[in-house]
Amino acid sequence: MALVLHYFDGWGRAERTRWLLMSYNIDYTEKLYEWEEWLKLRSSIEFGQLPALEIDGHLIIQSIAIDKYIARKIGIVPTDTYQEYLIESLLLYFDDLFREYANFLIYASDLQGFIKYYNEELKDCLKWVENRIEANGNNGFVVGNSRTLADFVVAEFIIDIFLSGPRKGTLSPLIEAGNPKLVEFSRNFLASNISVATRVQTRADKDY
Amino acid sequence: MALVLHYFDGWGRAERTRWLLMSYNIDYTEKLYEWEEWLKLRSSIEFGQLPALEIDGHLIIQSIAIDKYIARKIGIVPTDTYQEYLIESLLLYFDDLFREYANFLIYASDLQGFIKYYNEELKDCLKWVENRIEANGNNGFVVGNSRTLADFVVAEFIIDIFLSGPRKGTLSPLIEAGNPKLVEFSRNFLASNISVATRVQTRADKDY
Repeated sequence: MALVLHYFDGWGRAERTRWLLMSYNIDYTEKLYEWEEWLKLRSSIEFGQLPALEIDGHLIIQSIAIDKYIARKIGIVPTDTYQEYLIESLLLYFDDLFREYANFLIYASDLQGFIKYYNEELKDCLKWVENRIEANGNNGFVVGNSRTLADFVVAEFIIDIFLSGPRKGTLSPLIEAGNPKLVEFSRNFLASNISVATRVQTRADKDY
Repeated sequence: MALVLHYFDGWGRAERTRWLLMSYNIDYTEKLYEWEEWLKLRSSIEFGQLPALEIDGHLIIQSIAIDKYIARKIGIVPTDTYQEYLIESLLLYFDDLFREYANFLIYASDLQGFIKYYNEELKDCLKWVENRIEANGNNGFVVGNSRTLADFVVAEFIIDIFLSGPRKGTLSPLIEAGNPKLVEFSRNFLASNISVATRVQTRADKDY
């Protein structure tokens, strides 16, 4: 049975799931909702939240839980407890950072506010992530010696917010100066992931 | 080596971890910070976030990741992919709900606003959780046939916000009327968990 990803016509909290499915050649289709249509259907989807994914006869929700479900099916979850912690803590940390980003650029459309936040806080927040990449040996992976969800969470955040989309002219130079290791990591991620690179080159620009 | 839990002198995002450690008789001590003290130390703790837990020679952060780390060590993580999803999605959903609660009652001290939010939204949000408990057979566990993190996340949220603390006189009747199954579940959780029940009876009331 083909998978169906339910979301809005945006990148947002579903784009990382798309990249994950594409990278491992998992067939899926999408059901994209207009806001008014979603409001009518909302009470029929558990927790009233999107994205949701039809998979294995279930409709599953919460983007991090969706991606972990897929990762377990693919078999890219490390058996080491500490390595799994390293991945989970990054997924959760980037969830915090995404909420900050969303407040500035999805809800308030406040680009100048976001730039100020980047310079005063986010740049330093992302240095912790650069430190982890360095501690892992700058080997092209965030955790261990192979691709995990940690690579997807870092690359998708950097590429979708800073290196692509309608604001890249303003935000790319910012992050190239402030967090060059994350830019290098994300470009290498794309270079080694043809399906995602094609998606990034060919998708329509989205505000979120 | 004894574990050390770093947090503020409140329940907040560390209380579930405490209950988990107590329930499985895992020795730990606490390092509680005053806000000014924390601001000085913040840049030395990864991600600049609390709670943090010293364990196995690591200082680990992000409360959900901390609790999952402990759960793996204890051995209460199911091997079934869908059951693990059920637990993870609940941890993440309650993180969303905790943020709403925190906006009303930690940051704004707006009890009337919280009561309005409960009546208009949260009560229905929690009905999804009651549905899961019912779907699992009302057997005293949220997922499967034994205790998992899912039980801790549900019971701690309901007990700390509604059934104990300085606002219980106002909030207990509210949830007893609106989400009686969650109240019953949480009281049964306490009845079967002496160390946590003792903690709840003897700890000082906290605003958060």
